[in-house]
Amino acid sequence: MPSFDILTVLPGLFSGFLTEGVTGKAIAAGKVRVTIHNIRNFATDRHRTVDDVPYGGGPGMVIKPEPIFRAFDHICENLGKKPHVILTEPWGEMFTQEKAVKLSKIENILIICGRYEGVDERVKNIVDEEISIGNFVLTGGELPAMVIMDAVIRLVPGVLGSTESLKADSFSDRGLMGYPNYTRPAEYRGMKVPEVLLSGHHKKIDLWRKEKSIERTYLKNPALVEKLLKEGKFSKEESEIVRKIIKKFSDKVKRTDDGERSV
Amino acid sequence: MPSFDILTVLPGLFSGFLTEGVTGKAIAAGKVRVTIHNIRNFATDRHRTVDDVPYGGGPGMVIKPEPIFRAFDHICENLGKKPHVILTEPWGEMFTQEKAVKLSKIENILIICGRYEGVDERVKNIVDEEISIGNFVLTGGELPAMVIMDAVIRLVPGVLGSTESLKADSFSDRGLMGYPNYTRPAEYRGMKVPEVLLSGHHKKIDLWRKEKSIERTYLKNPALVEKLLKEGKFSKEESEIVRKIIKKFSDKVKRTDDGERSV
Repeated sequence: MPSFDILTVLPGLFSGFLTEGVTGKAIAAGKVRVTIHNIRNFATDRHRTVDDVPYGGGPGMVIKPEPIFRAFDHICENLGKKPHVILTEPWGEMFTQEKAVKLSKIENILIICGRYEGVDERVKNIVDEEISIGNFVLTGGELPAMVIMDAVIRLVPGVLGSTESLKADSFSDRGLMGYPNYTRPAEYRGMKVPEVLLSGHHKKIDLWRKEKSIERTYLKNPALVEKLLKEGKFSKEESEIVRKIIKKFSDKVKRTDDGERSV
Repeated sequence: MPSFDILTVLPGLFSGFLTEGVTGKAIAAGKVRVTIHNIRNFATDRHRTVDDVPYGGGPGMVIKPEPIFRAFDHICENLGKKPHVILTEPWGEMFTQEKAVKLSKIENILIICGRYEGVDERVKNIVDEEISIGNFVLTGGELPAMVIMDAVIRLVPGVLGSTESLKADSFSDRGLMGYPNYTRPAEYRGMKVPEVLLSGHHKKIDLWRKEKSIERTYLKNPALVEKLLKEGKFSKEESEIVRKIIKKFSDKVKRTDDGERSV
């Protein structure tokens, strides 16, 4: 069974995550094991101290090395081997879907939840990779650990049911945005569902969805659509839609920087 | 008081977030209000249905418009005005620290937690902005909502104590990575703290930290360091360090793409 061991000073933050939603169900069904370890339980003194002032002075407290190394020893012993160790770190490598897919193939993962104030640098001797979930500052690594687990656990075979399908369709595979979704009622507070979706005409519906998906993507990221067109990643029918959309919107699209434009 | 109203089909996911850590303390101290609304409570039928099949067919279920609009009405009535409405959406605008700072200046925020399967498109009529926290797929918008709240709430005046300082130092302001942190013991399992940090020589410690911060940043993102140098964002002392580091590492740095190299 795939497993996640989590090292944190705030185990309570995970309570909802362990029992609710897709992850809670996957854990309850025995499809994945998630164990939250309180770093404090591995402290060596009777006050269970987990942090201390930084050598050399400066603001903030630093998580001590001993409780983390001792927790790591404990987890290795339980597993009978060394897990893949991730440290959540504001300056780590950016988390992406590609990384989620890679991690979903690893059996045993240990995530050490960093704190913005810092973890003793020597801990990095047991760390295989440092991961950041984005260019923003959080109070700790617990939410990033949950984000990583959520993205990975949904990829574990059998975790997603048919209604929560992976939707591995040809749109998302190529990085195209999804098409707009509507459900009943057909009219609500004067807002109507596009008629084509009520037509029952599957070919027209398919075409409309393709148009909307490509249009949205082009308005957001024109370079991607142009690149896919150049590389022949659109069918003949799609290529026609793309050319129409480029003609219609090419003056309106936002081009953010040289890097994006030059693709 | 700043407030967050959250619309979700999985209110239980937030239980730890509401009571633990920095956010839990901020809520308990009355520095911010966070109210989790179960979309299901605003459903109109006796089965409390919140989703339905998509018009036009296809996989997955779509969140119905009525319960969301009704919840929105309820929240507007409570507030006496319309809050700023965010929809978490895989294809939304990327969340950044800059966005967190902007949101921290808005009094009342409503976050509608999207589901990967989709929310009826008509809901976007009440949405001010769609936000994504990264290029990865999650099972729902609950974790993104917590990430957004965590990043914003820590910026609310009085939320962070002195030990969890904002660390708004000249390093992070310029996007430079932090320096390595160490705490006691000075030696652990044969791993020693760098001697300079034990020296008590503040000028040397300061210099070492600057070197490490610039070195780390250069190895990760050489273009940023080169840009800061070109724009005169380094002091005279720092500029010398930068030149030494560029000389030492310029052959070793990873350059990811043209965009980054050309800055």
